Amino acid sequence: MAENGNLKIGFLGPTGTWAEEALIAATAVSADETQPIPSVYDVIAAVAAGEVSQGIVPMENAIEGSVSATLDVLAFEVENVHIVREIVHPIRHRLIAGNRLPLDQIEKLLSHPHAHAQCRRFIREKLPQAEIVAANSTAEAVRLVSLSDRKWAAIGSSLAAKSYGCMIIEDDIEDYAGNQTRFVMLSTTPAPQDLETGYKTSIVCTIAHDQPGSLLQILQEFAHRYVNLTKIESRPSKKGLGDYVFFIDVEGRKDDEQVAAAIKCLECKLARVKMLGSYPVG
Amino acid sequence: MAENGNLKIGFLGPTGTWAEEALIAATAVSADETQPIPSVYDVIAAVAAGEVSQGIVPMENAIEGSVSATLDVLAFEVENVHIVREIVHPIRHRLIAGNRLPLDQIEKLLSHPHAHAQCRRFIREKLPQAEIVAANSTAEAVRLVSLSDRKWAAIGSSLAAKSYGCMIIEDDIEDYAGNQTRFVMLSTTPAPQDLETGYKTSIVCTIAHDQPGSLLQILQEFAHRYVNLTKIESRPSKKGLGDYVFFIDVEGRKDDEQVAAAIKCLECKLARVKMLGSYPVG
Repeated sequence: MAENGNLKIGFLGPTGTWAEEALIAATAVSADETQPIPSVYDVIAAVAAGEVSQGIVPMENAIEGSVSATLDVLAFEVENVHIVREIVHPIRHRLIAGNRLPLDQIEKLLSHPHAHAQCRRFIREKLPQAEIVAANSTAEAVRLVSLSDRKWAAIGSSLAAKSYGCMIIEDDIEDYAGNQTRFVMLSTTPAPQDLETGYKTSIVCTIAHDQPGSLLQILQEFAHRYVNLTKIESRPSKKGLGDYVFFIDVEGRKDDEQVAAAIKCLECKLARVKMLGSYPVG
Repeated sequence: MAENGNLKIGFLGPTGTWAEEALIAATAVSADETQPIPSVYDVIAAVAAGEVSQGIVPMENAIEGSVSATLDVLAFEVENVHIVREIVHPIRHRLIAGNRLPLDQIEKLLSHPHAHAQCRRFIREKLPQAEIVAANSTAEAVRLVSLSDRKWAAIGSSLAAKSYGCMIIEDDIEDYAGNQTRFVMLSTTPAPQDLETGYKTSIVCTIAHDQPGSLLQILQEFAHRYVNLTKIESRPSKKGLGDYVFFIDVEGRKDDEQVAAAIKCLECKLARVKMLGSYPVG
């Protein structure tokens, strides 16, 4: 899979994250072709620096919304990194411990705050006595539980339970069924544009301050050319409250006549239009 | 300040959070009129249940974007809670420890993952050796540091440093200057509509599945009535990737002729329009 000889594919680590699970589920890579990297920033920086052939990071969760670290690094901090593929992976949270603990004896529940948030009802109803303890990732939470001989449990993936020799006490403890995360594969080489499949094109539009009608104009450029938007997301421009950039995904290839024409018009009107990638739909 | 006799004002706790700092800075309340509540959900639920007179929670940060827990509980989980005021408060992160530690001796750096994210450059440059440890809140991080005799530091507010008897080692360690958070005060009684000040009206629009042009229609309803949008934010509807609700803030009171007309038209067209509040601008 690696284009650059023996470089590995970086994933948001540590071992046992949802990113690793998604990568394994969607590709034929083996463990010795992949490499955990500790943060979203570091994964993307490693791709930009050519230290890995590709990198996989979470972009958007169906419950929690976008992963702001990923959007912000792609929009503001790197220039030569392209989205080359998206992978949509189901997120099924497991309650994990070192051994079969009764629920009412669990003293601490470790996980990333987003996982706690996604399992709020289960925690309220089944684990009211447990102290909620934040960890840097769900995988890190499972790792910490595996090292402890206390009555601790973690929320994480089945890959994490397997990776750290723990057991799954309860399956599917999330509040909303059907939870998914959209991951993106990143590379310094853009995706090939000639595959026989649907494509998506992702851009970031920066609007000059005090142009409140600009979003309407952006939408109109696509609408009157019958280009469908699959996503629009506002994020702070980091210049103060009320100043936004918009992350937009549209159906089609960047070189499709109507998509290219809409983007060209936006480039004339807006402060900045950044191409994040044009890639096969996941 | 409390309308309901001797009920207190709830804030997202524990003691020393940014929410408490904002509440103290913007109102004349004393400590015995306020009450820390451990999560955003619990603050809003306490308001809805009449256990506190009002509640204050973070809504949107200039760097990190919206606080998804707040938006989701207001949009999906309560019916009788209104935004009655907004408070915009500067967020200046401090590096905090029990005593004056040299930076290169700090072994662990505790904070909420969002605060770590907001101080990424400082951490990379000045604290490369420190282990990043997640805490449930910045205030909790400072509390844990205050209880430890190890070489630990936390990222938090000056109120937290003061509340837990710690000292500030470095001021303003955030990556982007001018960071602010917009907090909202919540009550079961809507805000009075007769104050001599600018107002803002917040709504949530739910779009029926497969209506990709709906956002354009929403914007046009306001644009052709010359009603300015101050914010638009998409969030997952929790029904699957690609399904969104839109949080929209507009200038004006809900009963202003043009605002009321636009909202009435949206109610006819969309699956659901929920009024979050019409309140004085912060």
